[in-house]
Amino acid sequence: MDLKKNRNHPLLPQKQGALSPGTAVSIVAPMARAKVTIHDVANAVGVHPSTVSRVLNANTRHMVTAAIAQRVMEATRALGYHPNALAHSLRTRRSNTIGVLIPDITNPVFPPILRGIEDGLAAAGYTAMIANTDGAADRANLILEGMLARRVDGFILATAQRKDPSIDRCVAEDIPLVLINRTTKSTGRAISVITDDAAGIALTVAHLAGLGHKRIAHIAGPLQLSTGYERHRGFIAAMDSVGLERQPALIVVAEAFSEHAGERAMLTLLDRGKKFTAVVTGNDLLALGAYDALNARGLRCPQDISITGFNDMPFVDKVSPPLTTVRIQHYEMGMRAAAAVLERIKEPGTRGVDVRLEPALVVRGSTARPA
Amino acid sequence: MDLKKNRNHPLLPQKQGALSPGTAVSIVAPMARAKVTIHDVANAVGVHPSTVSRVLNANTRHMVTAAIAQRVMEATRALGYHPNALAHSLRTRRSNTIGVLIPDITNPVFPPILRGIEDGLAAAGYTAMIANTDGAADRANLILEGMLARRVDGFILATAQRKDPSIDRCVAEDIPLVLINRTTKSTGRAISVITDDAAGIALTVAHLAGLGHKRIAHIAGPLQLSTGYERHRGFIAAMDSVGLERQPALIVVAEAFSEHAGERAMLTLLDRGKKFTAVVTGNDLLALGAYDALNARGLRCPQDISITGFNDMPFVDKVSPPLTTVRIQHYEMGMRAAAAVLERIKEPGTRGVDVRLEPALVVRGSTARPA
Repeated sequence: MDLKKNRNHPLLPQKQGALSPGTAVSIVAPMARAKVTIHDVANAVGVHPSTVSRVLNANTRHMVTAAIAQRVMEATRALGYHPNALAHSLRTRRSNTIGVLIPDITNPVFPPILRGIEDGLAAAGYTAMIANTDGAADRANLILEGMLARRVDGFILATAQRKDPSIDRCVAEDIPLVLINRTTKSTGRAISVITDDAAGIALTVAHLAGLGHKRIAHIAGPLQLSTGYERHRGFIAAMDSVGLERQPALIVVAEAFSEHAGERAMLTLLDRGKKFTAVVTGNDLLALGAYDALNARGLRCPQDISITGFNDMPFVDKVSPPLTTVRIQHYEMGMRAAAAVLERIKEPGTRGVDVRLEPALVVRGSTARPA
Repeated sequence: MDLKKNRNHPLLPQKQGALSPGTAVSIVAPMARAKVTIHDVANAVGVHPSTVSRVLNANTRHMVTAAIAQRVMEATRALGYHPNALAHSLRTRRSNTIGVLIPDITNPVFPPILRGIEDGLAAAGYTAMIANTDGAADRANLILEGMLARRVDGFILATAQRKDPSIDRCVAEDIPLVLINRTTKSTGRAISVITDDAAGIALTVAHLAGLGHKRIAHIAGPLQLSTGYERHRGFIAAMDSVGLERQPALIVVAEAFSEHAGERAMLTLLDRGKKFTAVVTGNDLLALGAYDALNARGLRCPQDISITGFNDMPFVDKVSPPLTTVRIQHYEMGMRAAAAVLERIKEPGTRGVDVRLEPALVVRGSTARPA
């Protein structure tokens, strides 16, 4: 216990004041901390409080020499001073925090995107406050409310639906907003940083057609999401472009971007009894689910059916067979979204530029010539 | 544009006041929003402002009827009212936010743990503010500083080193703190929620010994982390317990819990030329790296060498061969850590109870009888 901090401690000489000798000694609760102010730090180092303030702000630290900055940081630590960011935020209406909503952190495509976002924000002294929505619109709304109440300076949303009232609302209230990975029908002043989904799917169709596949099926992701919708449209356009017939019986829309939904969709395709030799799926989780369905039916990939994914999420190079898929620029996407939201905060009047990143095909063991 | 909000709009009748007729009409910046207060919401619904406050606080919402709560929420949305959580936080010194530090979000073991934390916190109206440290102590310190400045109410750290000055500091300052997955040498008032690592490793050694393996190697994780250290100690104790000789040449300590480090460690083991038929690794990423080393040397798993992992992270059932590993209770661990930090905030005087969760062995295709 730091005796200096506890002025009523029995071991310290007590001043005669409001307390009469018989009064019980007040107990300092464990949470109580002596209030160290910016002036204490400034006095300890021998500088003006404004210098301390500059050192503690990532945006102004360069204005102070490294030697002074180091002494300030040491004094800050030694004294246990915590600059009151909330009070600062109330004065400036800035919290240097960006809310990041993702549909499901257990989908391995998101961690590398988040790393890009975090690194991009950290470089500007901003922090990401990350939350899951489980793909539920009402949960997304609740989280948005909570984050707005904490005065986040902007949002990066990986949760966009094609029609999305919560995005419309942020746009209407002019809250800095960047959509990542998915976009919405009418973005208005919301910037989007996405992959060229149609171009990515076209790469898979061209690859399969080049191997000699003629009957190619498609497991689409949910069409209320731009990724599901654009990849589905891309599949149709690409089949037309390579001159292959597309059959409605060979297209199934999965109810979610999940392994379980992919397995069900693949079983549906197989149950329809219409012959096909390859399946283009809407993402890697759907493709892994399709693997499970093939195993359950005693079919082999790629000997009986070739399968392609989308995202090149971590570890799909290690599954059996290693997955042929479309590589998206996860980290770059995150960095760009961070830059876009910061730009929008800095220049509230500007809209910023939508970004559409180029995907690439990664050919592995899940695709081969048809038998 | 909402004309009512823009009192200087040329289409609205202008009152004669401070502005002379020739004065330029002031331009409302896009960020400017009419300040809607709790009184506006209360008036719209016809209730007292304290009722609105109760509805907007997750801890008191149950005190208001569902019908009123719904009308308040609708009015809140319709008017665009954002309760000022920062101001509330300054009054109460509570932000209802918990800082969560993880070493690397791209390690698939963490997302399911984070889900448990988030769900546990959300049930009490708390939000997780998640950040990566990349396993770097100075980055962890910087993030802790930033989060303390934002007045987080407590921390859940998955980043503990066995000797960890930043934990010592939090403990010294009596900041509510829960260690998850990893612990530290002297936790003091920091509670830890971890797996019984030694018991988990003992399961793998007993399994391999039961298959007939006698020469079992070990790729340990970094010994400055409790997980690396306890699993290493557990390996030695388990080998003794089943009566197998342990040879120093068959133990390698990896420099990180990563695939790359696992690959290098396995190559080191193979290069030493000492014969072994099985490897117990410190976690799944190390095991996947060991797969790569075997492939590079033209060896097969499990025909030539059996391999076990630790964590049962997502997708290791889909790799080739599917990985025999130790299942930890990811989600439960997260839920318990959330409960522990909330309990510590509620009852600052108590220390709480350390939790050690039981692991289980999952046998898959990467282990078999020795040739």
